[in-house]
Amino acid sequence: MQKQAPPLVAIIMGSKSDWEIMRHADETLDRFKVPRECRVISAHRTPDALREYVLAAEGRGIEVLIAAAGGAAHLAGVVAAHTVRPVLGVPIPSTTLQGLDSLLAIVQMPAGIPVGTLAIGKPGAINAALLAVSILAAARPDLRDQLQQFRAEQAQRILDETLP
Amino acid sequence: MQKQAPPLVAIIMGSKSDWEIMRHADETLDRFKVPRECRVISAHRTPDALREYVLAAEGRGIEVLIAAAGGAAHLAGVVAAHTVRPVLGVPIPSTTLQGLDSLLAIVQMPAGIPVGTLAIGKPGAINAALLAVSILAAARPDLRDQLQQFRAEQAQRILDETLP
Amino acid sequence: MQKQAPPLVAIIMGSKSDWEIMRHADETLDRFKVPRECRVISAHRTPDALREYVLAAEGRGIEVLIAAAGGAAHLAGVVAAHTVRPVLGVPIPSTTLQGLDSLLAIVQMPAGIPVGTLAIGKPGAINAALLAVSILAAARPDLRDQLQQFRAEQAQRILDETLP
Amino acid sequence: MQKQAPPLVAIIMGSKSDWEIMRHADETLDRFKVPRECRVISAHRTPDALREYVLAAEGRGIEVLIAAAGGAAHLAGVVAAHTVRPVLGVPIPSTTLQGLDSLLAIVQMPAGIPVGTLAIGKPGAINAALLAVSILAAARPDLRDQLQQFRAEQAQRILDETLP
Amino acid sequence: MQKQAPPLVAIIMGSKSDWEIMRHADETLDRFKVPRECRVISAHRTPDALREYVLAAEGRGIEVLIAAAGGAAHLAGVVAAHTVRPVLGVPIPSTTLQGLDSLLAIVQMPAGIPVGTLAIGKPGAINAALLAVSILAAARPDLRDQLQQFRAEQAQRILDETLP
Amino acid sequence: MQKQAPPLVAIIMGSKSDWEIMRHADETLDRFKVPRECRVISAHRTPDALREYVLAAEGRGIEVLIAAAGGAAHLAGVVAAHTVRPVLGVPIPSTTLQGLDSLLAIVQMPAGIPVGTLAIGKPGAINAALLAVSILAAARPDLRDQLQQFRAEQAQRILDETLP
Amino acid sequence: MQKQAPPLVAIIMGSKSDWEIMRHADETLDRFKVPRECRVISAHRTPDALREYVLAAEGRGIEVLIAAAGGAAHLAGVVAAHTVRPVLGVPIPSTTLQGLDSLLAIVQMPAGIPVGTLAIGKPGAINAALLAVSILAAARPDLRDQLQQFRAEQAQRILDETLP
Amino acid sequence: MQKQAPPLVAIIMGSKSDWEIMRHADETLDRFKVPRECRVISAHRTPDALREYVLAAEGRGIEVLIAAAGGAAHLAGVVAAHTVRPVLGVPIPSTTLQGLDSLLAIVQMPAGIPVGTLAIGKPGAINAALLAVSILAAARPDLRDQLQQFRAEQAQRILDETLP
Repeated sequence: MQKQAPPLVAIIMGSKSDWEIMRHADETLDRFKVPRECRVISAHRTPDALREYVLAAEGRGIEVLIAAAGGAAHLAGVVAAHTVRPVLGVPIPSTTLQGLDSLLAIVQMPAGIPVGTLAIGKPGAINAALLAVSILAAARPDLRDQLQQFRAEQAQRILDETLP
Repeated sequence: MQKQAPPLVAIIMGSKSDWEIMRHADETLDRFKVPRECRVISAHRTPDALREYVLAAEGRGIEVLIAAAGGAAHLAGVVAAHTVRPVLGVPIPSTTLQGLDSLLAIVQMPAGIPVGTLAIGKPGAINAALLAVSILAAARPDLRDQLQQFRAEQAQRILDETLP
Repeated sequence: MQKQAPPLVAIIMGSKSDWEIMRHADETLDRFKVPRECRVISAHRTPDALREYVLAAEGRGIEVLIAAAGGAAHLAGVVAAHTVRPVLGVPIPSTTLQGLDSLLAIVQMPAGIPVGTLAIGKPGAINAALLAVSILAAARPDLRDQLQQFRAEQAQRILDETLP
Repeated sequence: MQKQAPPLVAIIMGSKSDWEIMRHADETLDRFKVPRECRVISAHRTPDALREYVLAAEGRGIEVLIAAAGGAAHLAGVVAAHTVRPVLGVPIPSTTLQGLDSLLAIVQMPAGIPVGTLAIGKPGAINAALLAVSILAAARPDLRDQLQQFRAEQAQRILDETLP
Repeated sequence: MQKQAPPLVAIIMGSKSDWEIMRHADETLDRFKVPRECRVISAHRTPDALREYVLAAEGRGIEVLIAAAGGAAHLAGVVAAHTVRPVLGVPIPSTTLQGLDSLLAIVQMPAGIPVGTLAIGKPGAINAALLAVSILAAARPDLRDQLQQFRAEQAQRILDETLP
Repeated sequence: MQKQAPPLVAIIMGSKSDWEIMRHADETLDRFKVPRECRVISAHRTPDALREYVLAAEGRGIEVLIAAAGGAAHLAGVVAAHTVRPVLGVPIPSTTLQGLDSLLAIVQMPAGIPVGTLAIGKPGAINAALLAVSILAAARPDLRDQLQQFRAEQAQRILDETLP
Repeated sequence: MQKQAPPLVAIIMGSKSDWEIMRHADETLDRFKVPRECRVISAHRTPDALREYVLAAEGRGIEVLIAAAGGAAHLAGVVAAHTVRPVLGVPIPSTTLQGLDSLLAIVQMPAGIPVGTLAIGKPGAINAALLAVSILAAARPDLRDQLQQFRAEQAQRILDETLP
Repeated sequence: MQKQAPPLVAIIMGSKSDWEIMRHADETLDRFKVPRECRVISAHRTPDALREYVLAAEGRGIEVLIAAAGGAAHLAGVVAAHTVRPVLGVPIPSTTLQGLDSLLAIVQMPAGIPVGTLAIGKPGAINAALLAVSILAAARPDLRDQLQQFRAEQAQRILDETLP
C-alpha cells in the first residue's frame, strides 16, 4: 500500500495548528504504509464542507476516520453523526485547560453515536493511527503481522533501555 | 405578543429528558409573553434535521436561539455554526460529571463562532430566557420595561424574606 | 449471526457489579445479532486468567474486545497489552469520583498501546457495542445496512418526540 | 459607524493586564466598525465607579456590555446586577488555576441575573465581540451582512489551508 | 452579651435557602452570646440594598461580616469591596458542582480586597462564627476564655468517643 | 509601630522557597508599619518546634498568625489547632497541581478549628496581610484610617489606568 | 495472634463517623488475626493527645499506623511527622467534594515525611489493612502464606462469578 | 549494606524518561545504603517481561517494590497483582493533566490489591524510598536509627533557615 493509493484512513483536524500533533498519526500510518489523507476542516467554521466531506468519504473507500480538535471539540462527534464507519477522536491540548475540555467534549458522546477516544495530545495521535491499523487489519493479514512486529520491536526497545 | 404569534425565540434541546430543565426557559419567556417554539433535535442523531431547522429559522423570524444539551454537548455549537443570530447555550447536568462536561463542551468554542453560555441546569435555563428577552428588548421598549419590572419584583421578594 | 455462533466480540468486566451497565452493550450487540460472550475477569485479582483469556481470544475468532472497569481501571489497558485486535474501553461510574478516575485511567494510554474509549457509564456501554458493530461491518455489508437502519430509526424517534 | 461615534458596546476589564486579551475584542469590533469604548474598572477595588458607569451607560447609548475578569471574577455579575442590557462575560486565564476559577465565577450566575459567558481567554474575547455584533445586528441589517461576509471569509481561510 | 444588644457580627446570605447551612453560624455565635443579625441580601438581585447595608454596618457597630453564597458567589467579595472590616466567606454547596464553584468564586479574590474563606457548607458556617469570635476576642478577654473552654470541651468529646 | 516593636503578626511558612510569595505579606504589613516576624517552620518536619512556637506566640503578643504552605498543606490547620487567635492560611502554588491541592488542604477544615483562607499565591499573601491589618484595626483606629487610605489610593490607581 | 495480644497495627480516625468506613480495615485485619487497636483522635481538635499517642505507639509495639480522615485531612501527615514507622492514609469521602480534597490533603506530602495513601473510602480501608499485613509479613511467614491464600480465594471468587 | 549486595528494593518505571524523577528514589535509598535495582519495564508494552520480573523478584530477595508511571499509570497495580510484597506507587507528572491522571490511576485501586501511593513527582519519589526504608527497618534496627538521624537532620536544616 502507498500514499498514492486511494486513502483508507482520513485524518481530519479542526485547525492547521493541530498538525503539530496530528502529524504523528500521519507518520504512524506511514510506517504501516497505510494510504491516508489529511485535511483541515472545522465543525464550526466550515460545517457544510465537513458534512459533504464525510458523506463522500465512504464512497471514496475511506474505512476509518480520525478527527482531532481542541476546546469545545465537536469535530469527531459531528463526523460520527454523518457516517457509520468507525470514528476515532484525538483531544488536542492546545487550550487553557490542558485538553481536559477537549477530552470531555469528545468522549462523553450520547448513546447512539460512538466515538472511540484516545489520549490527549501526541500519544493519542499515535494511538489513533495504531487503532485504525488494527481495525483495517481484520481484513488484511499483512497489517496484523506488521502490528505484531511493531509490538515486538517496541517491547525490545523498552527492554534494551539502560539507566545511568 | 402571544404564543400563537410567529416565534421570536427557538428553544432546542438534544433530548426530551432535557425538557424537565428547559421548561423553565419556556415558562420565563411566557411570563414576558414572548412567542417561542420548543423542539427536540439532536446534533448527533438528527444532524440534517438540525441543519435544516437552523437554516430556515431566520427566514421564519427567529431572532434568538437557545440550545441545551448534556455530556459532549455539541448542540449549541452546531446551531451557531449555521446562523449569525445570537445563540445561547444551557449545559444540562444530566451526566455522571454533573454538567462540568456539558459546560466545557458548550463554552469553550473556538474564535469565530460564539455561543453565550449560561449556568448549568435550571438557573441557566431561566437566565437564557432572560438574556433572550434582553436581546429582543433592544427594539422593543415594552420588553425593557417588563425586564425592569421583573428585576424590581425580584429584588422586593429578596428584601421581603424573613429568617426564622 | 446468533449467540450460539462462535463469538466475535468479547465483553469483559472487572467486577460482576459492572454488569448493570455492561448489559446494555450485550443488549445492543443482541439487537444486531452479533455473537458475543461476556466475562468477569479482573486485571488485578485474576491477572493470569486475564492474560490467558486474551491470548486465546484471537484464536477463537474474537475480533473486538470491550473492557469495562471503574476506579484505577486498568482492565482495558492490560487487555490491549496482550492483543493487536481493537480494544474498546468503558469507564464505570461506580467510584466516589463519579467515573472521572475511571475515564482518565482508561483513556490516557501511552503511545504504542491504543484503547478506544467511550463515555462513562451506560451511554459508553451502548456506544462500545455500536463501535464494535461498525468495526465488524467492514467485512460484513449486512451489518453496515443494519447500522444505517439503526441510525434512521434512532433519528425518527427523536423527530417524533413531542413536548408537553 | 466609527470609533468617534457614540459607543454602542462597552468593554470593561478588571485590571489593565487584561488588555492583552481584551484588545482582541476591541480589534474584532473595529473590524465591524462598531463604535465602542474600553475601560478598566474593578468590581472590588472601584465598586462605586463601576456602579455609576453601568447606571449611566444605557443613557449614553451603550447597548451591549462586555466584562472581563480573572480569579473570583465578579465583574460581569456586578455589571449585570445594574443593567437589563445584555451582558457578556470573558474569563481571563491569568490565575494559577488557568481560568477555571474565572469561568465558574462568571458562568454560574443565579437565576434572575444572566451573563452570557464566552470561552476562557483570547477566543472568548473575540467571540464576545462577535456575539455583541450579532445582537446589534438585529436592528442593523448591514451588520448582519458583514457577519455573513466574515463567516464566509473565515470558512474560506480554513478551506485554503494546506498541510505539509 | 445578648441578641438584643447591638449586633457585633452580621451574617448575610444570598438566598433564604442558605439559612439551612448558615443557621449553624447563628447557633455558634449564640453559644458565645455574641449579638449578631442575619439578613438575606443578594449581591446580584439587590445590589443597592447590599451596598447600603454594608456602608451603614460599621456605623451601627458591626465588627465582622460573614457572607455566604453559592455558584458564582460574589456576595462576600462585594461586601468586602465596601468595608475595611474583616469579611469572612462561606461557600454554599447548593449547586451542581457541589460548591467547588462557590469556593473558587469566594476565595480567589484579587490582591487588595481580602475575604477570609472557610470550608464549603456546614463546617464552614460553624468555623466562620468561631473565627469571628476569635477576632472579637482580641478586645474581649472573656470571649477568649470562652473559646478556650469551647476547645477543651470539644477535645474532651473526641477523647470520650468509643468505637463498637 | 515599627519592625523592632514586639511583633503583632507571625508569618510562618513551611519551606524557605515559600518566601518568594510570602515576602508580599511582609511588604504589605511593612506598608502599614505593623511589627511582625517571619519564620520557616514545617508542620511535618519540625512538628515540635511548630507546637512550641505557636504555644508561646500568644504570650509574646502575637495577635494574628499567617501560615503558608503547599501540597498537603497542613501548616495552617496545625497552627490553628494550638491557638484560639485568628489564623489565616495562604495556599502556595508550588506543586504540580497549581495549588488546588494546597487550597483544599487549607480551606476544608473540620468544624471546630477555623482557618480563614486567602487566594492561591501572591494575591493571597497580600490579602492575608490586609486581613490581618483589618483584624488589628478593631482596637487601633489609626490602622483603620490607613486601610481606608490604602483603599482610596488603590481605587485611584485603577481609575487612572489608560488603555492604548 | 489475637485481638487481646499487644496490638501491631493502630487504626486512627479523625471522627467517630469515619468508623462506618474504617471498620472494614478492622474486619480485614481480623480475618488475618492481626492484633490491632482502633482510636478516634483528631489532628485538629486533640493535637496533644495525638502527639502523645503516636510517640508512645512505638514503645507499645505498634508496627504500622493507619490514619483516616476527610476534608483538610491532616491526620495521617501529623502522625507521620511523629514516627518513623510506616504510616498508611485512607481518604474519607464524607465531604462535599467526594473525597478529592481528602485524597489530595493526604497524598501530596512534602519530601521527607511519607504517607502511603490508599483509595478513597471502603476500598482504601480494606487495602490499608492488606498493605499493613503485607508489611508485617516480612518477618512473619505465616502472614505471607495467609496473604497468598487470601489472593487465591479472591481470584477464585471472581472466576466463579456468573452473569445472567 | 551496599549496592552490590542482593537488592532489597526494586524501583520500576514505565519509561526511561521517568528516571529524571525516580533517580531521587535511587539517591534516597543510596543515602541509607539500601541495596536496590532500577528497571525500565512497561505494564503495557512489555507485560510478559513485567510479570516474569515480579514473579521472580521475591525469590531474589526483593522485599519492597516501587513502581512509577504517568498517564493511565497501570504499572503499580499490575505489579501488585503479581506479588503480596508491599508495592509503593509514584505518579509521574509528565502528562498534559499534570499528574492528576497518574495519581488517580495509581491510588484508586479496588479492594483486594493495595498500592501505597505517594505524592506526584519528585517528593513522591523521595518519599517512596523513605517509606521503603521504614518498612525494611522493622527487621533492621540500624535502619530505624538512620531514619531517626535523617529526621533530626532534616528538622535542623529547617530550623537553620534564615529569611532575608
